Amino acid sequence: MGDYQVTGVQQDALGAVQLELGGNPNTLALRRPFDPLAHDLEASFRLTRFADLKGRGCKVPQEVLNKLVEGLQQDYNSATEHEHAHFMHMAIPRIGIGLDCSVTPLRHGGLCLVQTTDFFYPLVDDPYMMGKIACANVLSDLYAMGVTECDNMLMLLGVSTKMTEKERDVVIPLIMRGFKDSALEAGTTVTGGQTVVNPWCTIGGVATTVCQPNEYIVPDNAVVGDVLVLTKPLGTQVAVNAHQWLDQPERWNRIKLVVSEEDVRKAYHRAMDSMARLNRIASRLMHKYNAHGATDITGFGLLGHAQTLASHQKNEVSFVIHNLPVIAKMAAVAKACGNMFQLLQGHSAETSGGLLICLPREQAAAYCKDIEKQEGYQAWIIGIVEKGNRTARIIDKPRVIEVPAKE
Amino acid sequence: MGDYQVTGVQQDALGAVQLELGGNPNTLALRRPFDPLAHDLEASFRLTRFADLKGRGCKVPQEVLNKLVEGLQQDYNSATEHEHAHFMHMAIPRIGIGLDCSVTPLRHGGLCLVQTTDFFYPLVDDPYMMGKIACANVLSDLYAMGVTECDNMLMLLGVSTKMTEKERDVVIPLIMRGFKDSALEAGTTVTGGQTVVNPWCTIGGVATTVCQPNEYIVPDNAVVGDVLVLTKPLGTQVAVNAHQWLDQPERWNRIKLVVSEEDVRKAYHRAMDSMARLNRIASRLMHKYNAHGATDITGFGLLGHAQTLASHQKNEVSFVIHNLPVIAKMAAVAKACGNMFQLLQGHSAETSGGLLICLPREQAAAYCKDIEKQEGYQAWIIGIVEKGNRTARIIDKPRVIEVPAKE
Repeated sequence: MGDYQVTGVQQDALGAVQLELGGNPNTLALRRPFDPLAHDLEASFRLTRFADLKGRGCKVPQEVLNKLVEGLQQDYNSATEHEHAHFMHMAIPRIGIGLDCSVTPLRHGGLCLVQTTDFFYPLVDDPYMMGKIACANVLSDLYAMGVTECDNMLMLLGVSTKMTEKERDVVIPLIMRGFKDSALEAGTTVTGGQTVVNPWCTIGGVATTVCQPNEYIVPDNAVVGDVLVLTKPLGTQVAVNAHQWLDQPERWNRIKLVVSEEDVRKAYHRAMDSMARLNRIASRLMHKYNAHGATDITGFGLLGHAQTLASHQKNEVSFVIHNLPVIAKMAAVAKACGNMFQLLQGHSAETSGGLLICLPREQAAAYCKDIEKQEGYQAWIIGIVEKGNRTARIIDKPRVIEVPAKE
Repeated sequence: MGDYQVTGVQQDALGAVQLELGGNPNTLALRRPFDPLAHDLEASFRLTRFADLKGRGCKVPQEVLNKLVEGLQQDYNSATEHEHAHFMHMAIPRIGIGLDCSVTPLRHGGLCLVQTTDFFYPLVDDPYMMGKIACANVLSDLYAMGVTECDNMLMLLGVSTKMTEKERDVVIPLIMRGFKDSALEAGTTVTGGQTVVNPWCTIGGVATTVCQPNEYIVPDNAVVGDVLVLTKPLGTQVAVNAHQWLDQPERWNRIKLVVSEEDVRKAYHRAMDSMARLNRIASRLMHKYNAHGATDITGFGLLGHAQTLASHQKNEVSFVIHNLPVIAKMAAVAKACGNMFQLLQGHSAETSGGLLICLPREQAAAYCKDIEKQEGYQAWIIGIVEKGNRTARIIDKPRVIEVPAKE
């Protein structure tokens, strides 16, 4: 603790943080789970109660959103044509609404601005992890475009009107620290943001890069014969909900026949670890193995994002998905609770999910091997690119790959 | 309407929009106020009811925020030193938390990234105007730094969980259109964003520019003898609240002795017009008249932002404010309702307020004359820069300048 003194409650709170952080904010290996009591909060304190999504994703449904942005899209398209003419000599296309990032040609020397924003609500109870997940989730959109360097980030925070001052003073700095540590891990920094009060606790950010056109991969180049690789398992939404149901007997009773408490805790930790993991190496390897395009899997689920990616292809292709890697036991949980998540149909929302990448068939295995070597995490070939009309589907009885928690 | 057909309710809704927009989205002169009935909504529909701030600003109080970001600030400062060394040869300082924008040196040719974000809740009942105000408010942070070109914008939207589908389908596209039209007016475009569901309706955005260091004005150069110019009147928060109280007899009774319904409607329209007005010309003229620094007046009120600006000065100066230009009758309203706004103490939140600019004394009158000539709006010399310890204050009995609605 060095040569300064803190006293009373602050000392305890700081002690708890130090303990959780293992004395060093970057030593995650030693980190212990968030314990409300260690921060003088009620044992029953749950960050996830400061939003009320009842297991749904926080996104406005895709078809509604499409309708809402229709007007914008039209203007955008005409602006696109205009801009395209204007920037023709630079050969930088404007890319925007509907893809993971916007790409805007700049006034300066052939550079472009690649930018993305995302925000949502607490889905894990550990504020520090929640901050890390939010940051990884924002950055993921850059990584999906093959952009591996982020120039800066802004943080967007909504402090819940329902939090006590004490809760706020414990939780918000931990969320901020998690976000910031994840940004540091990604080699970038948080340079600003906005903090407001809001009924639900809100966390998100903006990630921005200025780069040369060769630094990003326009995700429209899939060809027949490519295969689809997924870099993280599905089932994060199911896992975080199942974990909340441990406190809710009537919910828990619906799934306890197919899963043990221990299974759920393991799945929850696997999900947290997965969501906090950066897609940065996955992105870097896209360049090495000549990826033809990618997207990241988030609020619209595997199939939603696969369909969007398919719809943007230059060639007449379609995506067919055969395999679904799912966090262990979560497929059974999803079935047991009346299919509310539509996990095996590809509609379950994910947070900070993996990259779905179109790779040349002969490179895909090497890609998966390389990522496992560098990170110790598996990636999976889950489908193929066929001739088609720019759609995506999951076959009738996809193979579910149970992905165990790492020991 | 060209060669496509719309039918039934859609036709009516579209007709209403066309009417309000005067047939041309950019012809604001002909625009009529938002009428819920014209969109098949209940006559009692009020956009401002989709948030519940009870007259407070939406910001987390400044002193709380300072405490919350303390940890971040420390890391940020050490990052600053590090970065400063690293970028020394480029002589671009990193500027960040606490100022209106973040400025980040880029990897490319001496350029820097200037960026800001802001979001808040509906404070006027006209969705189109709300979109315009939100956009002008985000851009204002760039303008405060003397940056007049914005490269792109992202839109941040929270669709209220309490809206009916019908309300959502009417209101959200109008907000989007207002935001987009304001961006066009500013010479930029909206290239993406995020839309979520949220208890309160939320609207905001991100504005980004990549520029040469000579395009922005670091707001730290005030000298003794400078004067302070303000480019918009105060009292927006008072005006929008007084307007809501027209529907609330118990509230209205508290202020009806000092103000007529007609006064309140005029003040409300003056406030809307003021909040939707871009600070772009004000920003451009900062370069012409050698401004020593500026900030924009938003959620922390005139004095809050003046104090922040003062605290960032290189020289030992303080700001003393003598005059308060206030939208007509709003000073009386603020007094009549028990000083809840603290308007004359400089604490009343503003939205998309004016620029507060430090100008050389001999240039200030010319600045005010020029802005009036170009825009038809007055600006005011409201204070002076004295020798001091980097603080700001309002004198005991400031002169209130009543700013009438434009006819």
